Amino acid sequence: MALTIEVCLTPELIHQHQLKGKIAVVVDVFRATSCIITALAENVKAVYPVSTVAECLTLGAQGMLTAGERGGIKIENFDLGNSPFEYMGKVAHKEVAISTTNGTLALSKSTDADQIIIGAFLNISATASYLLSQKLPLVIHCAGWKGTPNLEDTLYAGSLISKLIQKSYSLSDDSAQMAYDLYQINKNDLIGAAEKSGHAQRLARFGVTKDIAFCIQNDYYPLVIGKMEGGKIIKI
Amino acid sequence: MALTIEVCLTPELIHQHQLKGKIAVVVDVFRATSCIITALAENVKAVYPVSTVAECLTLGAQGMLTAGERGGIKIENFDLGNSPFEYMGKVAHKEVAISTTNGTLALSKSTDADQIIIGAFLNISATASYLLSQKLPLVIHCAGWKGTPNLEDTLYAGSLISKLIQKSYSLSDDSAQMAYDLYQINKNDLIGAAEKSGHAQRLARFGVTKDIAFCIQNDYYPLVIGKMEGGKIIKI
Repeated sequence: MALTIEVCLTPELIHQHQLKGKIAVVVDVFRATSCIITALAENVKAVYPVSTVAECLTLGAQGMLTAGERGGIKIENFDLGNSPFEYMGKVAHKEVAISTTNGTLALSKSTDADQIIIGAFLNISATASYLLSQKLPLVIHCAGWKGTPNLEDTLYAGSLISKLIQKSYSLSDDSAQMAYDLYQINKNDLIGAAEKSGHAQRLARFGVTKDIAFCIQNDYYPLVIGKMEGGKIIKI
Repeated sequence: MALTIEVCLTPELIHQHQLKGKIAVVVDVFRATSCIITALAENVKAVYPVSTVAECLTLGAQGMLTAGERGGIKIENFDLGNSPFEYMGKVAHKEVAISTTNGTLALSKSTDADQIIIGAFLNISATASYLLSQKLPLVIHCAGWKGTPNLEDTLYAGSLISKLIQKSYSLSDDSAQMAYDLYQINKNDLIGAAEKSGHAQRLARFGVTKDIAFCIQNDYYPLVIGKMEGGKIIKI
């Protein structure tokens, strides 16, 4: 019996999915989970995703670095924004509290799952290998944009599916089929496809085109696997 | 300024879309809106979509034909199920009350729109021509399957977009882009694509494979345009 893969295109639809007994792979390509994987690659001690700016500041007062954005823009007085480049050379052996528009919401809505894994193109092959070792059904939980589906997270879902589909997994809903099809037509030009997304166009207006190109890279951090347990994200 | 096209992949996400000032095109390819277009082509007087079996029976007691399904199966004691073939030769000059799992929900959640148009492959070109004449922004509202997105309604959205995109319309959300891309890769084998959908597989188990082939046909009824006004659907 093949293991099932479901895709949830936005946190607004996660109540349609049974998470218990499954692994949730949470992805927010632009840019929360790409930042988290970068932080893990940079040997952060742990990343604490929180819902509000106030919670971030409370953890900041306890010695953590504060990180995050609202509507794509760095929060005032925070140590870090939501660009992977800001995490480089700054987070080793430290703890980071992060709050973002979409990514941290998707993480907080995934806690019924047996495991929560952090998805990003930057470590997609390592994540796929880990998932294959676990032999559990999957729900790929796309963070989307303010409650609506987005292109880049759906493309990630399709790309991850393409690494699992030949290996004892099968698609169990139409969203998974749609994500897989979308990846198939766009796989030779992921940057071009991602640039069509509304979110990429918003980011481009903030001058962060280089973030788009960075976040869309496959396996830039080939050895990192990120997992959330007990409210914090660590490298496993 | 181009007119915008949004796609709502399931009624669960319709609250993300502002409908006022726009046309909502409601589609439930398998099979509610395909049945409604068939009924209009067969010269039904009007179709009344209602939410519950009880409402249908009340209207039936007033002389209407009762139609509908729950979970893909005809409702006991109803005059008609949810197959377009059942409407042929039976509905001319009559009124029909219909209640289905997904389609009638999408219709009831579209009432904030300036106009509600009934979408189906069976009359897609006529619908596109009508929309072009109206010069209003669009929300293509896919009925989906029990709250989740489905393949066939998304393909309809992509196909309708392909008829409008060169003609003063532009895509205004990632769901519209995804629907358009999905249609582009599947357009030469829509039946094959539709057969991958979970709903088609459920229908095939009920032995209604011929409904799938029928509902996926472009412009079988090239002159029919369906519109809902004041709670009833008529041909315009």
